[in-house]
Amino acid sequence: MSHPPSASPRFARAIPEGDDRERSVCSDCGFVDYENPKVVVGTVATITLPEGERILLCRRAIMPRAGFWTLPAGYLELNESPAVGAAREAWEEARAKLEIDQLLAVYAIERISQVQLIYRARLVDPAVSAGPESQEVGLFAWGEIPWDHLAFPSVEWALSHWRETSGESAFAPRSNPSGETGRMSGRFAAG
Amino acid sequence: MSHPPSASPRFARAIPEGDDRERSVCSDCGFVDYENPKVVVGTVATITLPEGERILLCRRAIMPRAGFWTLPAGYLELNESPAVGAAREAWEEARAKLEIDQLLAVYAIERISQVQLIYRARLVDPAVSAGPESQEVGLFAWGEIPWDHLAFPSVEWALSHWRETSGESAFAPRSNPSGETGRMSGRFAAG
Repeated sequence: MSHPPSASPRFARAIPEGDDRERSVCSDCGFVDYENPKVVVGTVATITLPEGERILLCRRAIMPRAGFWTLPAGYLELNESPAVGAAREAWEEARAKLEIDQLLAVYAIERISQVQLIYRARLVDPAVSAGPESQEVGLFAWGEIPWDHLAFPSVEWALSHWRETSGESAFAPRSNPSGETGRMSGRFAAG
Repeated sequence: MSHPPSASPRFARAIPEGDDRERSVCSDCGFVDYENPKVVVGTVATITLPEGERILLCRRAIMPRAGFWTLPAGYLELNESPAVGAAREAWEEARAKLEIDQLLAVYAIERISQVQLIYRARLVDPAVSAGPESQEVGLFAWGEIPWDHLAFPSVEWALSHWRETSGESAFAPRSNPSGETGRMSGRFAAG
């Protein structure tokens, strides 16, 4: 199935037979380089400590939005299920071991062709630490969340949707808040 | 963001800095050609007629599994939200106009790096007809579903999960039945 770009440098925009939009097509062999949306998988992972419920957040060490707080999340890999990928990201970014509960939300960031699958999860151990893509990680009470220093709108959406579905054992996953596209403006402007 | 394959034919497998697995990397400019899982969006679309509830199925006109019955589904396009994509596929394959209800299931077909987002939907009009990728389309009572002529295991899963959640207004989306990978064996062997 694989046609590495190196095998044929002769790609041009064309509408493949039976298709209805332009794609990158190899003029040597007809291979169509379909471009597809990317899947981001992540979690709102929590643990109940003696002092109350805490939410795992990571402070980004990488661009974009280095220094801002986010949920553990990243691109789903080939041959990986979304729930497994979400747990992997929590390990990579926060050395967090967790159990996936259920799908909290499906967000569409159409501008950048991203589909985000965000799961609700339980941290099985409060011992977390920064992985290579995090400056630091922390367990936050709801009232301590650094709302003015969140990395992306969808982090705010997921936290709100987590709060909204707290205590519910079966619910329909949330989607983008009405009218919200994930645009990086206001508090989320580049900085 | 775009680095067309034509711009540099010199891709080689390498582990990019800060990464932990091999990617296709351009030896000219360092561009990393990440390969990503693909998102399939589809629907179990139903309508209640005087004679009872009916489910929309399409008989495939294209490979793989031409001649077998499937749900309207296909690849999510760039800059498209999953729900919009699912409705588009129903139009393309069955000229069906529908209203998306809620997410029925997230299936992972890891072997082919596919994530399937299947929605429950209401057909707003029983007038459906075959689009270019369908030989025919039909509205089936539950007892009329051609179980022995379904195209893919996930079609069977989605129909079963639709039945299981029938009448529920809020539920957690289903995932692969336990131990099921979507392997094309038994009834689903190439044919």
